[in-house]
Amino acid sequence: MNDEFYMDLAIKKAWQFLVLTYPNPAVGCVILDENGRILSIKAHKKAGFLHAEPLAILFALFSKNGEILSEFLRLYNQFFNTNFKNQNELENADLDAKFSYDFILKNHSNLLKNATAYVTLEPCAHQGKTPPCANLFVALKFKSVIISQSDLNKIASGGAKILKDAGIAVKMGVLNDEGKKLLEPFVSWQSGNFSFFKLAISKNGVATGGIISNLKSRTHAHELRGVLDLLIIGGNSVRTDRPRLDARLANAKAPDVLIYSKRDDFDKTIPLFNVPNRGVKISNSLCNLNAKLIMYEGGENLLKEMINHKISNLKWLLIYQSSQFKTGRNVMLDFSLNPLFQSKIDDGIYGWYELC
Amino acid sequence: MNDEFYMDLAIKKAWQFLVLTYPNPAVGCVILDENGRILSIKAHKKAGFLHAEPLAILFALFSKNGEILSEFLRLYNQFFNTNFKNQNELENADLDAKFSYDFILKNHSNLLKNATAYVTLEPCAHQGKTPPCANLFVALKFKSVIISQSDLNKIASGGAKILKDAGIAVKMGVLNDEGKKLLEPFVSWQSGNFSFFKLAISKNGVATGGIISNLKSRTHAHELRGVLDLLIIGGNSVRTDRPRLDARLANAKAPDVLIYSKRDDFDKTIPLFNVPNRGVKISNSLCNLNAKLIMYEGGENLLKEMINHKISNLKWLLIYQSSQFKTGRNVMLDFSLNPLFQSKIDDGIYGWYELC
Ligand SMILES: [Zn+2]
Ligand SMILES: [Zn+2]
Repeated sequence: MNDEFYMDLAIKKAWQFLVLTYPNPAVGCVILDENGRILSIKAHKKAGFLHAEPLAILFALFSKNGEILSEFLRLYNQFFNTNFKNQNELENADLDAKFSYDFILKNHSNLLKNATAYVTLEPCAHQGKTPPCANLFVALKFKSVIISQSDLNKIASGGAKILKDAGIAVKMGVLNDEGKKLLEPFVSWQSGNFSFFKLAISKNGVATGGIISNLKSRTHAHELRGVLDLLIIGGNSVRTDRPRLDARLANAKAPDVLIYSKRDDFDKTIPLFNVPNRGVKISNSLCNLNAKLIMYEGGENLLKEMINHKISNLKWLLIYQSSQFKTGRNVMLDFSLNPLFQSKIDDGIYGWYELC
Repeated sequence: MNDEFYMDLAIKKAWQFLVLTYPNPAVGCVILDENGRILSIKAHKKAGFLHAEPLAILFALFSKNGEILSEFLRLYNQFFNTNFKNQNELENADLDAKFSYDFILKNHSNLLKNATAYVTLEPCAHQGKTPPCANLFVALKFKSVIISQSDLNKIASGGAKILKDAGIAVKMGVLNDEGKKLLEPFVSWQSGNFSFFKLAISKNGVATGGIISNLKSRTHAHELRGVLDLLIIGGNSVRTDRPRLDARLANAKAPDVLIYSKRDDFDKTIPLFNVPNRGVKISNSLCNLNAKLIMYEGGENLLKEMINHKISNLKWLLIYQSSQFKTGRNVMLDFSLNPLFQSKIDDGIYGWYELC
């Protein structure tokens, strides 16, 4: 298989955590051993969590030698007083970055000498809580690092130079268009803000009449709410559905809410107004929002207004679509979408689309 | 990565050619070299074409050694007076099975010694136009063959025994449920018939008002028409849309058509009735159809009748869904689907679903 095949795996993995990594970019990483065997496919999941590269390297080492996994579990549980039992439990854990980084340096036993990494974004050269990811590839004596996008961030960039200076073969621009699209929300956010519209519809386009999406879709939406700066919702949705708009399914902080409405005639006793530590504003202006990551939630009317009247800087849609045909009228609009990423989510699908 | 990861690649590849392989089952095959590197991911595409295993083996050899590709191109073009220039052109070609099989035996140079194959269905043990696929793995000295489904076909089965007798490690039942689902249309066809309903809708569920799906979707539908025993369509669709219902986009034979209608009041001058070598029947009975592979095409009314009145043995739906929101009323039914396979098709998606 060629470079594009492996980069595609890395990009698809990263899409699964798009926006959730805010304010970090979504990044995916695939590691092949010196013979070209896939050892791991990982992505950065959340700000504060391990970067994609050390996470992929850690699991690559586990896959090369089961004893490294046992040793990691033993030391980690001892040090942090945790009780992780196996690789699966580590998959979803917020592993300590510094500990994991040091563990890799001490325990790699040259098992990844001459290995190859595919990374959707140039590895960082920035000394933060942990040393730069680029240095990790150098220390482990990787043979080559294949990169889709170069890092334009002034502070973190320079990773490719570190790699090249150490004699690692670097190839840039593999699946360039796809890698760029993955990075677009981050770039947009950096230069101002990133706004997207969340819509949940049945297979035949019905957005009303009770819960539409499955639990996993709704949990994903709550995870997104947990990282937002602002959630915008239409006034009629609030009047009719009386939603809580918190992030309880993800155990995350409820986002601040802007109710897009001319009138302030809301029943203030509904849960929406009574979630602790959340601000609620009512306004029919979308100027000077002072928020960099914004999600619009709503149905036909709000979507229509945002698209047709171009009063928002809305570029992307996130659509959850169930596999149910539902009796009811569909969202009746007329516009075309360009699918950027689509994936199964339990018995439904969800996808990121740009307006075209 | 584990066995499930590679079997999943084989199964997903096979789904792409589901029904198109009729009267053969859809089969996928992935080959890893002795070090676990992926060499090829292939599927059986069409009856008469190479089985998945020799196709995957042939391309695995190309990937191991570019000179084998050059030699294949040279000999094949010379023997058949063709003009294939590269691997891409071979991908979509109807390669001669006997020639390819012999070429593999003469040119493998033990490059696949200790290799591993993942096959969605037990390799055949049946001497047809070519020797059994199982023998090929033996001749090339594969180390292990991982299989999802055992072959229940009396004539072709016994492949696993051939492999085991030669000392190849055989593992059965990997992704058993997924492999079984992939094989269901073939099993259903063997024991009577297989029927599915084809529906094309916009993102918001509109099935009417001109062409809905993109060209690639329509071409796929024409390829399906090319292998059908019978196409069933509702009388009203014929009266309103006056479709031709041929397979011109796939350069294939137009299927026989049954118009499901009580009345025979059709304008016989429309193209549907004037395609050479195709039978057209008008009937409101779906008993004794004398057809083993049947596709229903239509919109809301026909689908409703087939589902609600259970007058057909319909189990699966094939849905093409565009990425367009279209003004218009949606297909308004109430039932749930279980997605079996969903894939991007240009700017839309298509999927196989079972009613649940
Ligand atoms: Zn980093
Ligand atoms: Zn075979």
